[in-house]
Amino acid sequence: MLEKGNVTYLIGKDALRKSESRINQFNRILIITDINVNQHCVPVLKEQLPDTKISDIIIINAGEENKSLDQLCFIWNELTRLNADRDDLIINLGGGIVTDIGGMAAGTFKRGLTFINIPTTLLGMVDAAIGGKTGIDYDGFKNQVGLFVFPSCVVVDPIFLSTLEDIHWQSGFAEVIKYALIMDKDLWHKLDNRKYTEVDNWNVIIIKAARDKIDIVEFDKLENGLRKNLNFGHTIGHAMESYYLKSDNAVTHGMAVAAGMICEAWLSLKIFALECKNIKIVIEMIDKNFNRFDIEEKDIPEILSFMKQDKKVRGDKQNFSLLRKLGKAVHEVVVSDELIVESLKFYINRRSCE
Amino acid sequence: MLEKGNVTYLIGKDALRKSESRINQFNRILIITDINVNQHCVPVLKEQLPDTKISDIIIINAGEENKSLDQLCFIWNELTRLNADRDDLIINLGGGIVTDIGGMAAGTFKRGLTFINIPTTLLGMVDAAIGGKTGIDYDGFKNQVGLFVFPSCVVVDPIFLSTLEDIHWQSGFAEVIKYALIMDKDLWHKLDNRKYTEVDNWNVIIIKAARDKIDIVEFDKLENGLRKNLNFGHTIGHAMESYYLKSDNAVTHGMAVAAGMICEAWLSLKIFALECKNIKIVIEMIDKNFNRFDIEEKDIPEILSFMKQDKKVRGDKQNFSLLRKLGKAVHEVVVSDELIVESLKFYINRRSCE
Repeated sequence: MLEKGNVTYLIGKDALRKSESRINQFNRILIITDINVNQHCVPVLKEQLPDTKISDIIIINAGEENKSLDQLCFIWNELTRLNADRDDLIINLGGGIVTDIGGMAAGTFKRGLTFINIPTTLLGMVDAAIGGKTGIDYDGFKNQVGLFVFPSCVVVDPIFLSTLEDIHWQSGFAEVIKYALIMDKDLWHKLDNRKYTEVDNWNVIIIKAARDKIDIVEFDKLENGLRKNLNFGHTIGHAMESYYLKSDNAVTHGMAVAAGMICEAWLSLKIFALECKNIKIVIEMIDKNFNRFDIEEKDIPEILSFMKQDKKVRGDKQNFSLLRKLGKAVHEVVVSDELIVESLKFYINRRSCE
Repeated sequence: MLEKGNVTYLIGKDALRKSESRINQFNRILIITDINVNQHCVPVLKEQLPDTKISDIIIINAGEENKSLDQLCFIWNELTRLNADRDDLIINLGGGIVTDIGGMAAGTFKRGLTFINIPTTLLGMVDAAIGGKTGIDYDGFKNQVGLFVFPSCVVVDPIFLSTLEDIHWQSGFAEVIKYALIMDKDLWHKLDNRKYTEVDNWNVIIIKAARDKIDIVEFDKLENGLRKNLNFGHTIGHAMESYYLKSDNAVTHGMAVAAGMICEAWLSLKIFALECKNIKIVIEMIDKNFNRFDIEEKDIPEILSFMKQDKKVRGDKQNFSLLRKLGKAVHEVVVSDELIVESLKFYINRRSCE
């Protein structure tokens, strides 16, 4: 158990069981989840928490397209119908979409009910469920509305991973690679240049990655400084994700971040003169885990226009978080549009950095 | 100037002029206001801030029925269209509806832009613009969704009051009476048992009332304790307001709070054995300023049902903030449904407390 600020983190084997006494302090327990998680993970939760009485389960549709105002209203309506109040506990049980929209619903209903996050995906466990960022996509833009609001507790229990589909292992793995690159050389060595399907030490890796995230968000809750380092791969990655959100192609967050990390690793090389051989190793690791997107040079202007809506934009400036060296990032690096375009061409044309 | 927590308060004559250098530090200035305020107060603002360049004005419809998801979405859409970002400043210029919905919009767009509140009504100046409570009405319930988010600055300048309609003077006056009753005997004496139309020392009264509110919310930002005292008159008042929100009768917040204060003064008498002669003086002052609502005993169950949705409800308990004596309130007083019904009958039938 890790007490940081006002948040308790329970991480690792049996974390869920250890959370039971804390959960049962509340008047009523309401779960927010999606249809898939309800089917696969709610039975696991009930088995692990035999003494907990779940009053109601609010079930949203699954998939990024449902991180929407429509589903947020559905949750608000259900909370109204159930007459939820400040003595109740909301449990957000699911992946990043559930913790993002469920956190926003809990954080805004009657100006804030207590909630805890129980991530069920790798991405949720090492990233989305930690750090208080909540929100929905709006008007075609990722996380366009939302708020910073922290759960009272985050329970990271690998027990749920047995239900995880392959594509979600892959998606979460992009964030694991990111922590290794921006702050944790030891984690990089533990990844050992493997494909995610070959990893056999998940427990160690999840605990390390989750702690990396906790350390950084508890140091800088509202993203005024150091926390921005977490945006490595995400400036271009989010634009890619928004670009594909409009199309019929299902793209995971991890796939988009993987593409973003390749572009931004190249930007790091250009701006901080990183050694080409290091960048090659990084890109090799990413390409081993993710296929390149099938985008063309003619798509670049639209991807750039999504970038202008990014929350990291200040005035006209594109601020990036880039690698100063392997295992160390710096934030608020201003990059010109020309160089961004070049980085996308580097990605599209599979150029070598030499 | 008063620096409290992270908020700067500029209160009194020339406050607006004094805010100019602060406002002009931002990249762009965007105003959120309503159609009436745009007509009457934006010219005043421009005159007082001659060196400020207003980039855009987002104009919502006026009236409580527009403290709605629909108008919130309109603001989010406009902020998206204008590509608002974290280097811009939002100015919420208007009464409580504008600062409530504008604060929620600013507090949630891209997870939070910087905003300042410039109240233009008496109610806004002494209450709504101060304290970080933002939100919208939803599904027929007052402030059902919203968040606590503090403006960087609140500018209380009586210059705007010259444009105020009579009904809005009256509405704000209910909150002024409330501060006197719950915490400020000196203010009570300054009110001097007058009707709001007879008051001639507004500047003194506004500064005192605004400071009362600031003192209490800065002591207890998130309403965990002392701040609950501000709810005197509001538990029954909000239920009345929700009740009328569904009808065609236009009821101001102040009218509802005035009715609530009469009921809750009677509850204070019953529970804390306040002296009847004191309660009589209080009720006389309220009746001098506000007409009684034309409700009947048959309406009581519906008003009670609105109370069950109140954010102050915990589990099944109705928690009230009541008067321990004149000038002193206590919070978290549990009151039975029977006694609440009696207090409404007391109000409806204009009973005397003897």
